[in-house]
Amino acid sequence: MTAGGIADEVVAPTGRGWMRSADPPASFTMWRYRELLPVPDGPIRYPLPIGGTPLLPAPALRRAWGLPQLWIKDETRNPTASNKDRATALVIEGGLRRGVDTITTASTGNAAVATAFGAAAAGMRAAIFVSTDCRPEKLALMTQAGARVFRVRAGYAAAVDLSRAAAAAFGWLDRNTGANPVTLEAKKTVAFEVWEQLGRRVPDVLVAPVGDGPTLVALDKGFAELESHGLVTRRPRLIGVQAQPCQPLVRAWRGEPVGPADLDPAATVADGIAVMRPAIGDAVLDAVRRGGGAMVAVTDEALRGAVATLAATAGVGAEPAGAAALAGLAAAVELRRVGREETVVLLVTGREVTAGGPADPARVAVVETLDEVERAMAGG
Amino acid sequence: MTAGGIADEVVAPTGRGWMRSADPPASFTMWRYRELLPVPDGPIRYPLPIGGTPLLPAPALRRAWGLPQLWIKDETRNPTASNKDRATALVIEGGLRRGVDTITTASTGNAAVATAFGAAAAGMRAAIFVSTDCRPEKLALMTQAGARVFRVRAGYAAAVDLSRAAAAAFGWLDRNTGANPVTLEAKKTVAFEVWEQLGRRVPDVLVAPVGDGPTLVALDKGFAELESHGLVTRRPRLIGVQAQPCQPLVRAWRGEPVGPADLDPAATVADGIAVMRPAIGDAVLDAVRRGGGAMVAVTDEALRGAVATLAATAGVGAEPAGAAALAGLAAAVELRRVGREETVVLLVTGREVTAGGPADPARVAVVETLDEVERAMAGG
Ligand SMILES: Cc1ncc(COP(=O)(O)O)c(C=O)c1O
Ligand SMILES: Cc1ncc(COP(=O)(O)O)c(C=O)c1O
Repeated sequence: MTAGGIADEVVAPTGRGWMRSADPPASFTMWRYRELLPVPDGPIRYPLPIGGTPLLPAPALRRAWGLPQLWIKDETRNPTASNKDRATALVIEGGLRRGVDTITTASTGNAAVATAFGAAAAGMRAAIFVSTDCRPEKLALMTQAGARVFRVRAGYAAAVDLSRAAAAAFGWLDRNTGANPVTLEAKKTVAFEVWEQLGRRVPDVLVAPVGDGPTLVALDKGFAELESHGLVTRRPRLIGVQAQPCQPLVRAWRGEPVGPADLDPAATVADGIAVMRPAIGDAVLDAVRRGGGAMVAVTDEALRGAVATLAATAGVGAEPAGAAALAGLAAAVELRRVGREETVVLLVTGREVTAGGPADPARVAVVETLDEVERAMAGG
Repeated sequence: MTAGGIADEVVAPTGRGWMRSADPPASFTMWRYRELLPVPDGPIRYPLPIGGTPLLPAPALRRAWGLPQLWIKDETRNPTASNKDRATALVIEGGLRRGVDTITTASTGNAAVATAFGAAAAGMRAAIFVSTDCRPEKLALMTQAGARVFRVRAGYAAAVDLSRAAAAAFGWLDRNTGANPVTLEAKKTVAFEVWEQLGRRVPDVLVAPVGDGPTLVALDKGFAELESHGLVTRRPRLIGVQAQPCQPLVRAWRGEPVGPADLDPAATVADGIAVMRPAIGDAVLDAVRRGGGAMVAVTDEALRGAVATLAATAGVGAEPAGAAALAGLAAAVELRRVGREETVVLLVTGREVTAGGPADPARVAVVETLDEVERAMAGG
């Protein structure tokens, strides 16, 4: 199987077993790993299938780059086309069991879109907090799914504070990444999937974009759990990728001072990973050090090139932040941090979807205080 | 399982079987049905997983519409977010085995995007023919995946003619829907999946958008094959949906004359299904009649409303043509063509993805003749 990822070719079953089978075809989703997730027994209520994304061999990309063991873990195959759907699903699953009716998060964009659609599917209300910088296309998706969107002038960090305060004050589900450890639990399933899809092998190198940090830290946690269950004996090297205009963790990893030119989120096309104060930055640095990995910064030009290369040589659509792993791989190969014969997995984390129109202005407000939030939510 | 679709809730496996299993997790793809597809034995070479899309219970939509047995077959979970990926994959699979290096199609948009990305994944060249009306966002996706795009001023029907002539003259793979019967073979797997996901039951009603016709005709073919294998004893009623400004088959079905106001593809938001001369229109009418179904026309307002409702009450993103089944269901309920207790499946056929930038002008040309096409392809 391609998804099984042992070979370049899919070994599809032969025989007409399905004609006689009483069982409906089983889907591969992240619930496969529910025993290692904080989910009580009983049926899963979250109605969209999540995870179980393909590990693609990408033959043309392998040839072009001279890396015969290169793989793409395509997280864009989740319902809202990003890895954020995993965390959204697990947080909402917990909320459904406790009868909570509203979920909140702050986000640079994708986590908010995932939360808006996930809440709609599950019949919950969503209250999303974004910086006034957040791209209008992403706002349109949030309101299309019926979410309330609160824009915060003071930026993403202030949006996080307000979202968390609202969760505490109103008893809402808090899906803020870095704040809610359940987001890490969900994202660690990517490590389990990669390990199984490689035929129960750990890759040598895993490359992932880094914004707040949970995506990369969760990979480390997943491999740590496989190790503690005696299933693996080593960890992959994790390579974290940031955009050059907003690279606090690359500077920190190198022990260099962080200047204003390193902290300008509005100056990069990779809005998804442009975070000035990563929520769990120290954990990122620990995870990268532990496996002997690295942090690398990539230019916008490299990010755009990675988007084009993924589309044209692997048939995989990605947004710039989602394609950062490929740009980071180029940097890491240049720095001789990746060997030609090594098994390398690129985590492609997001693709741009669109609402096909503008945001519903009736569902969007600029706010500063919890009172304003409360009034807006009461108004519908 | 949600995808299994027997209940509202996912019955995820308990137990840690995956920790001991030697087999990688199996993915559910359309190759499950390969024995009924024109694919010789041996491994599948097409590298992207296709099909096996979820059948979603959509609890909030069920409650809102008073249809407790309503399901959404979510074809947007294919690699380029439309059902066109199925046909693309099967056509390319055949081409790979015969060593053909170029594929061509004409398209209103989505089939072209699917072909461009599918060809990129498989290491083929793609030559796409579109009307000069084709939306620029779709062109951008095609060139992002490295396709050559030929714009034809005389419109979609002329684009089909030129694409087919190029295939014949240059020995290219011809993926033109309606012309290449392999596209029907691929799309019939949707019927197999729905039948299995309902627990080996045929729905009472299946609603699908109709452009050239293969999507709906292939559903009919799929159920006919299940019948001929003795697996089912009845067919579902098929309800085909067109946009009011371009509804040749609705008029034909009603036996009414077709006026210019019924044939204005540029006048609807549902560009994917705005086809003036459907390639296999007669087969659509036969299939609809056979099962006792209907053809219905829906306004742009209803299409926009269906997009909003799918997002906000089911968490499913769709473009207007992709959401047409929901708009058509409303019309059919109004006409009393659907009973409240019936099992109804809506085929959601497409979601808008975006390249995040404009088309590469170097890969796009306006052409009229095969000579111009040949020169452009030779140029790179
Ligand atoms: C496309 C994309 N990739 C990667 C990330 C980084 O994730 P994290 O915040 O977990 O580090 C994000 C975060 O929003 C994203 O949108
Ligand atoms: C989103 C969408 N839905 C439905 C269709 C109709 O498909 P068919 O041409 O098979 O009738 C198309 C065709 O392009 C489409 O793009």
